[in-house]
Amino acid sequence: ADKLKRFPGLARKAIWKVGKEDPRRVVHSMKVGVALVLVSLLFLLEPLFKGIGKNALWAVMTVVVVMEFTVGATLCKGLNRGIGTLSAGSLAFLIKYFADAPGRIFQAVYIGIAVFMIGALTTYVRFIPNIKKNYDYGVLIFLLTFNLITVSSYRVDYIWDFARDRIYTIAIGCGLCLVMTILVFPNWSGEDLHKNTISKLEGLANSIQVCVREYFYESAKEETEDDDSSEDPIYEGYKAVLDSKAKDETLASQASWEPRFSRYCHKFPWHQYTRVGAALRQFGYTVVALHGCLQSEIQTPKSISTLYKDSCMRLGEEVSNVLRELANSIRNNRQFSPQTLSNNLNEALQDLDNALKSQPQLVLGLRNGRTRTLKTAVQAIPLPHPDQKLEEDTKFSFTSLGNCSSTPRLRQSVEHSRELKRKVLRPQMSMTASAIISLEFSEALPFAAFTSLLVEMVAKLDHVMVEVYELGLVAHFKEFQGDEIVV
Amino acid sequence: ADKLKRFPGLARKAIWKVGKEDPRRVVHSMKVGVALVLVSLLFLLEPLFKGIGKNALWAVMTVVVVMEFTVGATLCKGLNRGIGTLSAGSLAFLIKYFADAPGRIFQAVYIGIAVFMIGALTTYVRFIPNIKKNYDYGVLIFLLTFNLITVSSYRVDYIWDFARDRIYTIAIGCGLCLVMTILVFPNWSGEDLHKNTISKLEGLANSIQVCVREYFYESAKEETEDDDSSEDPIYEGYKAVLDSKAKDETLASQASWEPRFSRYCHKFPWHQYTRVGAALRQFGYTVVALHGCLQSEIQTPKSISTLYKDSCMRLGEEVSNVLRELANSIRNNRQFSPQTLSNNLNEALQDLDNALKSQPQLVLGLRNGRTRTLKTAVQAIPLPHPDQKLEEDTKFSFTSLGNCSSTPRLRQSVEHSRELKRKVLRPQMSMTASAIISLEFSEALPFAAFTSLLVEMVAKLDHVMVEVYELGLVAHFKEFQGDEIVV
Repeated sequence: ADKLKRFPGLARKAIWKVGKEDPRRVVHSMKVGVALVLVSLLFLLEPLFKGIGKNALWAVMTVVVVMEFTVGATLCKGLNRGIGTLSAGSLAFLIKYFADAPGRIFQAVYIGIAVFMIGALTTYVRFIPNIKKNYDYGVLIFLLTFNLITVSSYRVDYIWDFARDRIYTIAIGCGLCLVMTILVFPNWSGEDLHKNTISKLEGLANSIQVCVREYFYESAKEETEDDDSSEDPIYEGYKAVLDSKAKDETLASQASWEPRFSRYCHKFPWHQYTRVGAALRQFGYTVVALHGCLQSEIQTPKSISTLYKDSCMRLGEEVSNVLRELANSIRNNRQFSPQTLSNNLNEALQDLDNALKSQPQLVLGLRNGRTRTLKTAVQAIPLPHPDQKLEEDTKFSFTSLGNCSSTPRLRQSVEHSRELKRKVLRPQMSMTASAIISLEFSEALPFAAFTSLLVEMVAKLDHVMVEVYELGLVAHFKEFQGDEIVV
Repeated sequence: ADKLKRFPGLARKAIWKVGKEDPRRVVHSMKVGVALVLVSLLFLLEPLFKGIGKNALWAVMTVVVVMEFTVGATLCKGLNRGIGTLSAGSLAFLIKYFADAPGRIFQAVYIGIAVFMIGALTTYVRFIPNIKKNYDYGVLIFLLTFNLITVSSYRVDYIWDFARDRIYTIAIGCGLCLVMTILVFPNWSGEDLHKNTISKLEGLANSIQVCVREYFYESAKEETEDDDSSEDPIYEGYKAVLDSKAKDETLASQASWEPRFSRYCHKFPWHQYTRVGAALRQFGYTVVALHGCLQSEIQTPKSISTLYKDSCMRLGEEVSNVLRELANSIRNNRQFSPQTLSNNLNEALQDLDNALKSQPQLVLGLRNGRTRTLKTAVQAIPLPHPDQKLEEDTKFSFTSLGNCSSTPRLRQSVEHSRELKRKVLRPQMSMTASAIISLEFSEALPFAAFTSLLVEMVAKLDHVMVEVYELGLVAHFKEFQGDEIVV
């Protein structure tokens, strides 16, 4: 009952959110409305109706079914529908030609067999991955039209008119859809794919930056803990990457239907974008593991990690910068300089190496009870104030961080509602967790893992760079010019 | 041209593979064929045709469009189509009732406005995630039917008959589809979801087992390197988990349309299955990171890792065993014992802790040039023969491993074809990689990371256990009985 009372509010919120997220959706809805009115004119206007007749209904149907959000999707559906209808029509006539034999019963049996064979075959063909991906709708329409024509041919004599009308009206419907999607505020799948890739790169860059920052300045995290927002900026940054496979592939296959789209009339390199996406997913899994180090119940004492803080932060910043530079490279259609980026990364790696070498006994020191002495030694070193340091390092990205720097974990808040049910379970389950905490090796390992994952990340970044560079080659990005780097 | 020549062979292979992967597809194709023949009888048999007439074509259409692979999907489409048609019909009559005003032109304008409004509104509504997920098809059919009826009402006088026929024939088509999918060799989405979850758990168990094994016995890996198969058993095991989100959600939402399906007439807990899936994905990311330790260019010298081999292997085996026990629990619809599983995990953790504590200087030892002495010390300890040891520990899963124990990395072989293009890039890019290798800290860190990830994995496993336990509660699994554990 309570749910029912809250429903209008929730519905209004959902409706509002959909439009706010992407205003193109409102425009698209209007476009569909206009297209439907236009196609209805075939029926409403006397002269047009006389020309086409009642079969204009097929055109209305086509518009409803074919018109999609992006040009690529509409083209894919429209062409599939057109080709499916045409080929089904041809096949139906071929079969009718051979079936034009004596005997009403023989004819019926013949039609039945044909319907069964074609039905089973096309259904089976639709399971083939390649066909499912690009031509599923075409095969469906083929089956539909074939059945309609073959079955009607048993009763209707003017079957040729029937087929011709169906083809005409479908052509009119498809044409109208294409005009509306291509000429009026077009949405290109290729463009979406392009922008998605950029925003994924930037999301990952933010994730890593916040992640490394929180690892070393946990206080900064807790300050914002009371914030209302239940979004974890780290999770926000990489979540789009993790489950991007299906979306990427849909957009890419739609983009493959779009006419040559890039400025210089090269074929749109949609395939390479999916490869960049795959490399980013692999990279993203490492980011998740890095994030896991933050959330882990075992933490290395601050006294240890502070010693390597600057080097780790620098490496993290470098990785973020490379990701941002790659994003800029794609955004501005210009090639990046692998040389410069690699050099920066290498310097940061070398720096971390030096830091680790200069204090080799630290990783073990703790376990021998030397904690206290180390701690005081650390405190003696004058550290720059956290915020001050950050502002210097990440000046250009600070605003974007400011927008989302609040930390109460998303998943925690989601699971909060289920906490009650779990209370029964917890005592048993958390035994493992407390066992982990109580183990002594736990103190030294987590930091080593964090560092190792950072280094691993650099290796994965290499793959991303290769794929983006290749994208630049395929898409004929502008040459890299030394003075253009602003990172 | 070469591609064209190879096409028939490739096509035959693809067609064969689709059927071999899942023979139910062949059966489903037959079912569609039979359903189409049955619905064609409406046209072919004289008495039936007299009853329904030419509008039987709508029934043919409905069968082609509605019949899907699983019961859930068919029910979803069928009910959506039915409800969409009915509500559109009602609305159209309501509007016609008010529009039955004077003047042909006024009527046309009125119809145009209605078409525009309803078209734009329904298109917009389809963007709302909740509706898109479950009712997309229904809204589409609503729009379609509404337009057909409203527009025809301008010309056709016996519009009531038109609407009634459409509803009748769609009901016949949907009914036929449901009978065919539910009564003849039904495929249940819920069952697929159930089996998928089990196989994902087992895949992860295999991945971890092979991964830990390969980490310590690299020789075993190289033996099978010449094998033709280009599949990496580790990657094979977890790849289904990583991109499972879309598939899980589709199956779950289809399953939610299926009638109460479990044996005891409880509602099928599809929602909880998606939660288990989400926990598994989180777990899977850690497995990817663990796999990354294997593939990494930097490796800890064998002399170090051998010392901790037994404990790490034991922990890995324990984690695999827990996953297998969870899989069995779901498969046999019986609850598992969190107590027993946790105890085993804890013992393994404790074991690893002891091993690390007993040789604390090792992590650093290397860097101080003590490598040689350590190595000889290690060789003095009599180690059990690798295979012998494994056979004892993993007897019951050895066959499944045998099937896929060949290692040439999938991704490597895929990328091989692109190697040429990259040759130009490599010199620049691989600078980073070689920089990583040359760093000194690299020797100690990777093993620490590997161990830490193993421990992290146990923490994530906790979440998976909670979710599976909850699944057991919701799905009313049998109580756990002490003597049932066979792991």
